[in-house]
Amino acid sequence: MKASQFLISTLKEAPSDAEVVSHQLMTRAGMIKKLGAGIYSYMPMGLRVIRKVEAIVREEMNRAGAIEVAMPVVQPAELWQETGRFDKMGPELLRIKDRHERDYVVQPTSEEVVTDIARQEFRSYKQLPKNLYQIQTKFRDERRPRFGLMRGREFTMKDAYSFDRDQDAAKASYQVMAQAYRKIFDRFGLTYRAVAADSGAIGGDLSEEFQVIAATGEDAIVYCPDSDYAANMEKAEALAPQAPRKDASLALVKTLTPGKSTCADVAEYLQLPLQNSVKSLVLATEQTNEQGEIVKTQVWLLLLRGDHSMNEIKVGKVPGLDNGFRFATLEEIDAHFGCLPGYLGPVQTKLPVKLVVDREVAVMSDWVCGANEADYHYTGANWGRDLPEPDLIADLRNIVEGDPSPDGKGLLAIERGIEIGHVFYLGTKYSRAMNATFLDVNGKPQFMEMGCYGIGITRLPAAAIEQNHDARGIIWPDALAPFTVVVCPISPDRSPDVKAAADKLYAELLAAGVDVILDDRGERPGAMFADWELIGVPHRVTVGDKGLKDGQVEYQHRRDAAATKVAVAEVFAFVQSRLGASTGV
Amino acid sequence: MKASQFLISTLKEAPSDAEVVSHQLMTRAGMIKKLGAGIYSYMPMGLRVIRKVEAIVREEMNRAGAIEVAMPVVQPAELWQETGRFDKMGPELLRIKDRHERDYVVQPTSEEVVTDIARQEFRSYKQLPKNLYQIQTKFRDERRPRFGLMRGREFTMKDAYSFDRDQDAAKASYQVMAQAYRKIFDRFGLTYRAVAADSGAIGGDLSEEFQVIAATGEDAIVYCPDSDYAANMEKAEALAPQAPRKDASLALVKTLTPGKSTCADVAEYLQLPLQNSVKSLVLATEQTNEQGEIVKTQVWLLLLRGDHSMNEIKVGKVPGLDNGFRFATLEEIDAHFGCLPGYLGPVQTKLPVKLVVDREVAVMSDWVCGANEADYHYTGANWGRDLPEPDLIADLRNIVEGDPSPDGKGLLAIERGIEIGHVFYLGTKYSRAMNATFLDVNGKPQFMEMGCYGIGITRLPAAAIEQNHDARGIIWPDALAPFTVVVCPISPDRSPDVKAAADKLYAELLAAGVDVILDDRGERPGAMFADWELIGVPHRVTVGDKGLKDGQVEYQHRRDAAATKVAVAEVFAFVQSRLGASTGV
Repeated sequence: MKASQFLISTLKEAPSDAEVVSHQLMTRAGMIKKLGAGIYSYMPMGLRVIRKVEAIVREEMNRAGAIEVAMPVVQPAELWQETGRFDKMGPELLRIKDRHERDYVVQPTSEEVVTDIARQEFRSYKQLPKNLYQIQTKFRDERRPRFGLMRGREFTMKDAYSFDRDQDAAKASYQVMAQAYRKIFDRFGLTYRAVAADSGAIGGDLSEEFQVIAATGEDAIVYCPDSDYAANMEKAEALAPQAPRKDASLALVKTLTPGKSTCADVAEYLQLPLQNSVKSLVLATEQTNEQGEIVKTQVWLLLLRGDHSMNEIKVGKVPGLDNGFRFATLEEIDAHFGCLPGYLGPVQTKLPVKLVVDREVAVMSDWVCGANEADYHYTGANWGRDLPEPDLIADLRNIVEGDPSPDGKGLLAIERGIEIGHVFYLGTKYSRAMNATFLDVNGKPQFMEMGCYGIGITRLPAAAIEQNHDARGIIWPDALAPFTVVVCPISPDRSPDVKAAADKLYAELLAAGVDVILDDRGERPGAMFADWELIGVPHRVTVGDKGLKDGQVEYQHRRDAAATKVAVAEVFAFVQSRLGASTGV
Repeated sequence: MKASQFLISTLKEAPSDAEVVSHQLMTRAGMIKKLGAGIYSYMPMGLRVIRKVEAIVREEMNRAGAIEVAMPVVQPAELWQETGRFDKMGPELLRIKDRHERDYVVQPTSEEVVTDIARQEFRSYKQLPKNLYQIQTKFRDERRPRFGLMRGREFTMKDAYSFDRDQDAAKASYQVMAQAYRKIFDRFGLTYRAVAADSGAIGGDLSEEFQVIAATGEDAIVYCPDSDYAANMEKAEALAPQAPRKDASLALVKTLTPGKSTCADVAEYLQLPLQNSVKSLVLATEQTNEQGEIVKTQVWLLLLRGDHSMNEIKVGKVPGLDNGFRFATLEEIDAHFGCLPGYLGPVQTKLPVKLVVDREVAVMSDWVCGANEADYHYTGANWGRDLPEPDLIADLRNIVEGDPSPDGKGLLAIERGIEIGHVFYLGTKYSRAMNATFLDVNGKPQFMEMGCYGIGITRLPAAAIEQNHDARGIIWPDALAPFTVVVCPISPDRSPDVKAAADKLYAELLAAGVDVILDDRGERPGAMFADWELIGVPHRVTVGDKGLKDGQVEYQHRRDAAATKVAVAEVFAFVQSRLGASTGV
């Protein structure tokens, strides 16, 4: 490609609404152009990156035996009504009425349509396993679209769906995808982690997120530097407490803690470690009759160590809380504790509450908690002696840096990530809802076992930039770069030798299948270099009059601090060797 | 590809709503699956064809200097309001409200968005010309979607838009596209014609449709077998009448024609050639004031030869009719002619009407027309003698087979076509509406000159099938086939030799870059052949035990009546030579 025949459009300033660096740099580098909130045109420079993402994803999906289809962007509501998602999904599902006032949606994902295809196509166990995927435009009407391609409304996703005859086969299909994803993200040259994620109501371990590591990532991910344990914050667990509970050594004392309503304030005021204090959280669950009227409300008290925070996903799995819960109202709290939040505790509640205690709290002794009286806390509280043992003990908390890894192999660390892929075992959730059956070996209908597998095609370049940039701009891995090499002649209009040498190198690289661009725009060197550093082309060769007189040109990788002089005769081979060398980067 | 790892799904019967052969065959061959009215999933076999269309279009667009972008499918209404199309377009524009009740459309085309990009990006004449294109999902909410991919609601279109500094440059850009389109359709191996089309209000000749010739085509296209004249029916003209009008030779006679209200009936009843009769059409135009109230209605009488039909596009260009017209009401007709349709004529109307006459009618003498009295016609009517010369003479009619070509080089013929592409000079229609200007050489702002260029990506395979099929199924040109070659082993499970020979040929073709599929499904020969003939793979090699014993396999092109025996040792080269031979087909 010659730059004069392409659309290069760089900006000095990022738009004011660009909060994250990838949004700023993609806009400044002329890769995307905002059309509306969360809606972008992919400009030529950006589209080249997206096409490279698509090509690698497609290649590895095909290699893994998945078969490409394309499902409609605009989908009739009927199938979405079959699974109930037409009503259940919130306003992020973009609903449309056509000219005949019939309901449609713009697809945010395609479980319904692909399951409809499967129930028509896969009649026999002999036709399974099958994995159908598409790379297609999606829309999610986010309440607050932002961060450019990171959380847009219209985006491109690769979504794959596996269909299997039983759970074992489905798990094998899942593993094939999980492996393919590793190959894909390896090829992109990104630093990423596959982390265990919550698998919802289905349970089991068959849910992993692929997270690109970046300090600016929205997600906290937990890993063990000494083992391969990795999970997202929702899912991550610490090793259960190993040491038994110590015996009580202090008496229960009601202590004045005036105006100290947080564990941290109380610990500081009493000069005790925060880890000695216990945090009280009050939840409520409701039982309804067939008319939907509330017939019973149960109040729950959850205890966490003062330095820990509640993990809603884990709490949502506690028996009795697993059908939905809410925080208790002030009235409910007052009725049960005779006190308002800030001084609540499990000792001597006014009305009985269901007591659920984090594993760490269950092994504490001599702890501090609210005394159910304003401005008072207990110190020296102990299980068994001062109050009965808890009703339930469970893992209720988010892990913190330094917690022991659940595999016992070291201490957990936390880093930030950007989710770019997800593999998920669905079980029969959709096949049951849509009656997608096949005939098994015995001729009996069985629900298909499904999995779903997504990659955020348009989000991935943004994640790559969050991970790979500097003050001058983007630094693309070779596999994602809009162009792998840029040849920059200096003032070619004034030096026929420069022009000839640049043209020759360009032609050679092009002929060798290298994705090269020749900057023939006639820009001055400073502006030209600034453009390519902003755009992030990884390999640059500069051809100048001065160097040429010594038979030399300059090579510089985007990460190099300075240029390397290379003999003109050797530059083609030199560049090729650098491309080879950096494929794994 | 091995068939066992792909999704092959053929049907014996076409769905009852499939009216045209391409819809029937694409459904039966498992290429598309209907999801809703005019909305289809592209199944793996069909998607392969579509991807081939896209690849060729993309390659030639790039070669012609166009630059690929991708504009959003869901577009904010604001830009569409700037050009007025948000209100002006009918219900075929799918309108949406998002969660904040803001208006959006699902793009049916992208003039607004691309012009918005251009006005931001192209500030100087130095940046022009530019041509931006996309291959993107479109939606048109057709009232009556039908014919499968031929007239769907959701479809894929390649739409390109050129931006130029002046008309000459715009015309050059147009020609580059027109040439690229020829290359594209040549590469598809389809029989097509580029035909002149109406260019609307802009005028000039810069509008051409690319029509795939097929007996089932919706469009009538006109061409001269002896020259390169070709136009669609809307646009096609015959040579203006060359012979002068003959003198009157008959007297004007009011003749009883009881119940004969059509020209054909009257001609038959009077035993006169239909070409001697004149057809009367009554139109009306309205003048409104600023409040939109009708202040004046003008009634027009159009005369056509009895064997001719009105061309609305041509009539719409007659001065006075070019701001819109309608057919007159019965009341208006009665008021002006004192008679109802069937017996109308230009001689002695009750109230004056504006008389517009087709060129052919203007040179007639001794003609037949209605006498403005029920059951009566005039014979022997003549211009000048029986009524004044017409107010206006114009080309008002559709041409008929055998009309002289406008280039004087022979007689016109008519065939049916399916429009798959359109190149169109837009002028400054959109740039003016959206104030898309650039600074010219003198630093003065000028509106950009635009052109737009479409190819129906998903319609093209349907058109190809309408042109290329037989009783057994589709016959793909090599360039469009989902697979170019199929290797069919007969009972490979019973003959290791057959399996080995088929596997070897498959591997060789694959290694040579041929798009080959090996049918390893274990189907019986009859079913296997029927599948591939339905699917339309152009080249088939059958490997059977009997032939192998003589060192032979069978090759059959989809158009061949019978198979050709080929020595096993030569079959790879033989197939390759057939591929080479048929690239131009």
